[in-house]
Amino acid sequence: ETSAKVIDGKAVAKQIKDEIKIEVLKMKDAIGVVPGLAVILVGDRKDSATYVRNKKKACEAVGITSYEICLPEDSTEEDVLKHIADYNENPKVHGILIQLPLPRHMDEARILNAVSIDKDVDGFHPLNIGLLAKRDREPFFVSCTPKGCIELLHRYGITIKGKRAVIIGRSNIVGLPVSLLLQREDATITIVHSRTENPEEIVRQADIIVSAAGKANMVRGSWIKPGAVIIDVGINPIDDPESPRGYRLVGDVCYDEACKVASAITPVPGGVGPMTIAMLLSNTLDSAKRALKFE
Amino acid sequence: ETSAKVIDGKAVAKQIKDEIKIEVLKMKDAIGVVPGLAVILVGDRKDSATYVRNKKKACEAVGITSYEICLPEDSTEEDVLKHIADYNENPKVHGILIQLPLPRHMDEARILNAVSIDKDVDGFHPLNIGLLAKRDREPFFVSCTPKGCIELLHRYGITIKGKRAVIIGRSNIVGLPVSLLLQREDATITIVHSRTENPEEIVRQADIIVSAAGKANMVRGSWIKPGAVIIDVGINPIDDPESPRGYRLVGDVCYDEACKVASAITPVPGGVGPMTIAMLLSNTLDSAKRALKFE
Ligand SMILES: NC(=O)C1=CN([C@@H]2O[C@H](COP(=O)(O)OP(=O)(O)OC[C@H]3O[C@@H](n4cnc5c(N)ncnc54)[C@H](OP(=O)(O)O)[C@@H]3O)[C@@H](O)[C@H]2O)C=CC1
Ligand SMILES: NC(=O)C1=CN([C@@H]2O[C@H](COP(=O)(O)OP(=O)(O)OC[C@H]3O[C@@H](n4cnc5c(N)ncnc54)[C@H](OP(=O)(O)O)[C@@H]3O)[C@@H](O)[C@H]2O)C=CC1
Repeated sequence: ETSAKVIDGKAVAKQIKDEIKIEVLKMKDAIGVVPGLAVILVGDRKDSATYVRNKKKACEAVGITSYEICLPEDSTEEDVLKHIADYNENPKVHGILIQLPLPRHMDEARILNAVSIDKDVDGFHPLNIGLLAKRDREPFFVSCTPKGCIELLHRYGITIKGKRAVIIGRSNIVGLPVSLLLQREDATITIVHSRTENPEEIVRQADIIVSAAGKANMVRGSWIKPGAVIIDVGINPIDDPESPRGYRLVGDVCYDEACKVASAITPVPGGVGPMTIAMLLSNTLDSAKRALKFE
Repeated sequence: ETSAKVIDGKAVAKQIKDEIKIEVLKMKDAIGVVPGLAVILVGDRKDSATYVRNKKKACEAVGITSYEICLPEDSTEEDVLKHIADYNENPKVHGILIQLPLPRHMDEARILNAVSIDKDVDGFHPLNIGLLAKRDREPFFVSCTPKGCIELLHRYGITIKGKRAVIIGRSNIVGLPVSLLLQREDATITIVHSRTENPEEIVRQADIIVSAAGKANMVRGSWIKPGAVIIDVGINPIDDPESPRGYRLVGDVCYDEACKVASAITPVPGGVGPMTIAMLLSNTLDSAKRALKFE
């Protein structure tokens, strides 16, 4: 019985953060400036507050300055746009994050569009997506989670070119940009979504599976071609009476079954998750370098 | 022996042009304005001149005013940008086309980017591609040839949702936007390109095949699942001593073989080709309606 190699996102993320820390120091020594990341949080969702806190801590750990605005739930779109405009102008800020979801009374597209294209470290601006999709063009930023998926493949020396890649999910923030990135590296991509018939047959053809459906344990061992590489983006809570919180987090892929068939797999947690913040820091550093014409 | 239904792009294009003509007349009657399309041609390539002439004729036939600037091969980028800026400002112009290819000394991306996003009737601006890719957004314009492919499927009542679609080719102007359009309509898409291994196996799974590879007769009968629908975008010259010009045009799909397996197929010429200009006129009309808030 074989057992898949574990793709250790936590370790890779740590390594990347160490690399970033060194580069930030170099920048500080050379030109006396450090990168800055601004986060705008609207409302008081607990999970959002946690994410923002984690991003702040991660910035501090590598020497990136973090800026933060917390607005009340009943703020207007104009309030948010005002703060975005300020950060767009502020030369100390090289990346701007709008923590999603926004309150329901706000037009998300309008607000995301207001972020200056060269500070859109989330890579969600449609122009960044268009530049990513177009073959001869380069986006200013690639979204953090998708970039993290590809980075894991790279750091583990997994060949992408010419391989069949099946991406499960086509969301703007994960599935779509992952697909575009894999195609840029010459994979032959198939995108599975909720309207796809016989997804298991299609997934079984994949050399590389990226799952971002948000369905606990959907991808069974029988869906996987022996030797396939699996990047599991899903983060799904399932009941677990033995856990102190009453639940635990699992991926989209049935890990125990997949381990016996795949050649490599990301665990959940500890796979793609930690890479997202590392890529956010990396995008912020790149943005600062570009703005300051450093290196 | 079965024989595929012929998807008659010439007839559909004629029907669409008749529809446009009526709408242009309505607009003229109601507000005294007709749509305007501007074409910028640089250099003296014969094929480009022919395309431009055909577009002009097509405009005239439906009552759209056409504007044209022909610049010498040795013009500068600034010359072209100047004319684009003029057309961007000109309220009589609702669509601007830059005839490609541009002379080699010009930066194509820079020039295409200069076209105002709401006059980009070719839909080549990266922002339009990004809006097309993002699920909850709408592009200002969809590129003409890809839109023509989908329009043919619609007008022939071919179901897209839930079907396996294989797109051969991933160019910015055909393969990529066709893929995004099919996915928007809930097809499960696979994109085949020059680095794809065993393309025939993949193509054989398709319910809908869209080929835009530019390789004469590449797709053989054995590549096609019985009953599949084929949209052949390829236009490829092959030697033909019997033709007065010494060559004739064929598609990417081996037509005689495909006819025996497919349920429906576009011929070359007379399939997708005529649809492109019809869609250009349609985009120009839509643009004028939007600009003039008509209807
Ligand atoms: N840092 C990290 O690690 C991150 C993890 N995530 C996790 O990734 C997962 C996906 O997130 P996100 O992309 O935002 O989710 P969305 O809900 O926006 O998108 C889910 C996608 O999966 C498809 N899908 C849903 N059910 C099925 C099914 N049964 N079979 C096939 N496809 C299906 C949907 O199809 P359709 O389009 O037809 O509806 C949709 O395209 C979540 O678990 C999320 O928590 C997300 C972001 C970051
Ligand atoms: N109005 C109309 O009907 C129009 C017709 N056309 C015709 O459509 C065809 C494609 O045009 P365009 O998209 O501009 O062409 P490009 O040359 O820009 O793109 C061709 C695409 O096909 C892929 N390809 C090439 N050879 C193979 C192969 N052997 N197997 C699989 N994939 C292959 C290429 O792969 P890779 O990316 O790896 O290089 C590329 O993605 C041409 O014949 C063109 O004349 C085009 C526009 C309008």
